[in-house]
Amino acid sequence: MANDLPVLDALFADDAVRGDAAGILSGHGAISAFRQGRGGAPARTILHTEVVEISDDAALVIAITEPLTGGRGQQSQLWVRRNGAWKVRAAHVSLPAPAVNSAVWRVVGTPLVRGAAAGSLSGETVAVKDLYDVAGFAVGAGVPSFLDSGEPAARHSPAVKVLLAAGANVVGIAQTDEFAYSIAGRNPHYGTPPNPAVVGGVPGGSSSGPASAVALGQASIGLSTDTAGSIRVPASYQGLWGLRTTHGSVSADGLVALAPTFDAPGWITRSADVLRRAAASTLASHADAGSFVVDPVLAAQAEPDVQAAFVAFVGVRDTVELGDPQEFFETFRTVQQAEAWRTHGAWIQAHPGALGDDVAARFELASRVTAEQEAAARATLARLRAHLDDLLGDRVLLVPSASSIAISTTADAETVERTRQGTLKMTAVAGLTGRPALSAPLLSVPNAGALLPAPVGLSLVGPRHSELALIDLALSLATAPPAQPRAS
Amino acid sequence: MANDLPVLDALFADDAVRGDAAGILSGHGAISAFRQGRGGAPARTILHTEVVEISDDAALVIAITEPLTGGRGQQSQLWVRRNGAWKVRAAHVSLPAPAVNSAVWRVVGTPLVRGAAAGSLSGETVAVKDLYDVAGFAVGAGVPSFLDSGEPAARHSPAVKVLLAAGANVVGIAQTDEFAYSIAGRNPHYGTPPNPAVVGGVPGGSSSGPASAVALGQASIGLSTDTAGSIRVPASYQGLWGLRTTHGSVSADGLVALAPTFDAPGWITRSADVLRRAAASTLASHADAGSFVVDPVLAAQAEPDVQAAFVAFVGVRDTVELGDPQEFFETFRTVQQAEAWRTHGAWIQAHPGALGDDVAARFELASRVTAEQEAAARATLARLRAHLDDLLGDRVLLVPSASSIAISTTADAETVERTRQGTLKMTAVAGLTGRPALSAPLLSVPNAGALLPAPVGLSLVGPRHSELALIDLALSLATAPPAQPRAS
Repeated sequence: MANDLPVLDALFADDAVRGDAAGILSGHGAISAFRQGRGGAPARTILHTEVVEISDDAALVIAITEPLTGGRGQQSQLWVRRNGAWKVRAAHVSLPAPAVNSAVWRVVGTPLVRGAAAGSLSGETVAVKDLYDVAGFAVGAGVPSFLDSGEPAARHSPAVKVLLAAGANVVGIAQTDEFAYSIAGRNPHYGTPPNPAVVGGVPGGSSSGPASAVALGQASIGLSTDTAGSIRVPASYQGLWGLRTTHGSVSADGLVALAPTFDAPGWITRSADVLRRAAASTLASHADAGSFVVDPVLAAQAEPDVQAAFVAFVGVRDTVELGDPQEFFETFRTVQQAEAWRTHGAWIQAHPGALGDDVAARFELASRVTAEQEAAARATLARLRAHLDDLLGDRVLLVPSASSIAISTTADAETVERTRQGTLKMTAVAGLTGRPALSAPLLSVPNAGALLPAPVGLSLVGPRHSELALIDLALSLATAPPAQPRAS
Repeated sequence: MANDLPVLDALFADDAVRGDAAGILSGHGAISAFRQGRGGAPARTILHTEVVEISDDAALVIAITEPLTGGRGQQSQLWVRRNGAWKVRAAHVSLPAPAVNSAVWRVVGTPLVRGAAAGSLSGETVAVKDLYDVAGFAVGAGVPSFLDSGEPAARHSPAVKVLLAAGANVVGIAQTDEFAYSIAGRNPHYGTPPNPAVVGGVPGGSSSGPASAVALGQASIGLSTDTAGSIRVPASYQGLWGLRTTHGSVSADGLVALAPTFDAPGWITRSADVLRRAAASTLASHADAGSFVVDPVLAAQAEPDVQAAFVAFVGVRDTVELGDPQEFFETFRTVQQAEAWRTHGAWIQAHPGALGDDVAARFELASRVTAEQEAAARATLARLRAHLDDLLGDRVLLVPSASSIAISTTADAETVERTRQGTLKMTAVAGLTGRPALSAPLLSVPNAGALLPAPVGLSLVGPRHSELALIDLALSLATAPPAQPRAS
């Protein structure tokens, strides 16, 4: 009860497993690290203890707990005696749920907005990323003082409206990284949404709230945006389907921009079927897609375990040499910085202290991009776009959606930065070209300290307007993979 | 996985315990009855099974589940071999939480409305019963088509505004029985909120949503209303503090009425301290209260177990004979019926099918009260009010808040009606006189099939404007009871 870490470490067996709403941790090391990171167990009293004697050396201890904040919880602990010492071999902890997880959602209703009585999305439930206008609510963009400075929207954003017209209900408005300017999924004001696929892992961002809402089963469609990977990364980290649309194919009206040259709406879902229906209800143009192609240099930006899973899954494919991933990344970044500052700089300067350290530092760097640097980057961008379009044609580029599995919420700064840059180098091709990119949950790698492997997305970057074709191609890969997945 | 009830019954041991988010059931009979009532287990797949071998005759089986609706769950089952047959001795089941429990809440935010920066209620969180205006939202009153026919409120109800001014945040708008015309806490449109104090028990109503929200720890103050017991009954059933204010002492502006002669705002909380601060922030007048008094005939309207707990707790007190509880009930009911129909009859006639069967039948009966019947009841009401005021003076009547513990959600019709009438006879004194009534969670009775006893409230009905004095008196009873509680 006192959260005495050395005592708790001593009481848990080396081979202990511990489960709670966030998932199951396996082994003493993983459990101890979790306790170090959580900053204290919730204060609670024990209302009742039930001891089930199993043998002289084993007992199950069931406790009904009452957190100081109300509600009831349950703890079940299997105690075993080994070499004379009693140890916890397995623990299952349940705590009462909050009214709403404020790391995932800003507002929730039952529903918040009812859709049309019938349509292709009847029965589907939408988590709207807090960048889109929902009539009657101000947009927060992950920044509380931006929310406070806004007025309720008079009407729905077109991207919201079309889902409602197709029969989906809007469940609520879901959280985002501040101004969508991060792929981590950590918001210093509202917290870090859980990743149910990777216990203790970040959710990925910036569409963290919609992605976690969908992964948790709290919505079936996350209406999101992707500038540098903000749909593909959380989809990859959480084992979801995520689609970044062709640039310009979905109206950006009533949508808080980050970098308009790259910003693309899209959706995150648990199933390809729902994703396909969301895309079909919104997109007006549809194009075919050609054969698969792989750029080994681009795929090599991923961590070794992801790269190995990718190679094992995609097998032997036509290859292409697209160019220098570092140049892609830097060109993308400079234009993104210039536009992000143009979009939000004035507001940020007028509201000192409104942003957390990470995103504030990112905008500070963005503010320093000179007109000459921007012009040079735009020239390179035009050249790269033509070059990439020329090389890819109607072919579909296969590449990991992220350089790593969801990193731990307690990962060190070096790991955060290395995996971030690796990911952004791989996601930049879609941004630079405005091509659509689908992340399909087709890869997985072993995950130490967890009982299940961690998911990684396979990205399919196709020609403009090939969204539906990409979904169909991914399904064909899923059902008839060219090689056995290395870990599944 | 197939929810095969005979197979599940056969697999669970006679002395099995089974816990989930609703609480722990004890014994084969309670577990079997729960399964009969729930109408199917959630469809799910098992992602991983971990078997912890304990002995030749015992194993803990831990499974990671994935409901079809998304998210992750965990099941821990202790299997033991007895007489050659393997049985589940203990099970702990966790399922992913919904975005919001729609039986408890209609809309939730983080927060929905922010209160003043500082005040006597700083840090407190309010669940507003869906009868009060909250600016920007229509009122639903537990009836979806009433919600749809309404317009967003232009401003907060005064009872909401004063809590915000005192620094509390509004978390959300919480569910109510339809038009607050029931004390059961069951809403046919939104479902039955859970009662964390009584596994499988109704929450009590009509302030079911605010009460459950507070009991679950999802809010610290439930802003509620009490006409015939709608604060006292859910407080009693869920082990909470509940205060019905002096009639007319809190503005009814921006509040959907039921029977204005009896309607009284009030609050439900987990602690006397928070309740006292909510009351002090709202009420303008404060009166002292005199000594305790008991009416044995009135208290005898309770079920035997509640009556016994009441007698044991209050000990020997001055007694009073207030009159015939049946007359109290019938007089109250006739005036309530006439006013309820006057308030809502036109809307109900214009919206056939809008109400569930129970409340529709109640309004149908209400529509039949003639002018003569109403006039006669009002004459009796005036006589009873004078008579009761004369007998009680400044004394504080002690009476159980409800005739029973929270009855099961699967209770038979006879039990429902018997306990309802018993409760309404006891709650009528406050309604008839307009006196304030506090329900304090000071009684409890054993509860078969559960590991914990069930709470029952002790009501203190005091002179007008004695709210704060009643809270202080209840605290003095709690800390220095005149007799030992029978079960605690």
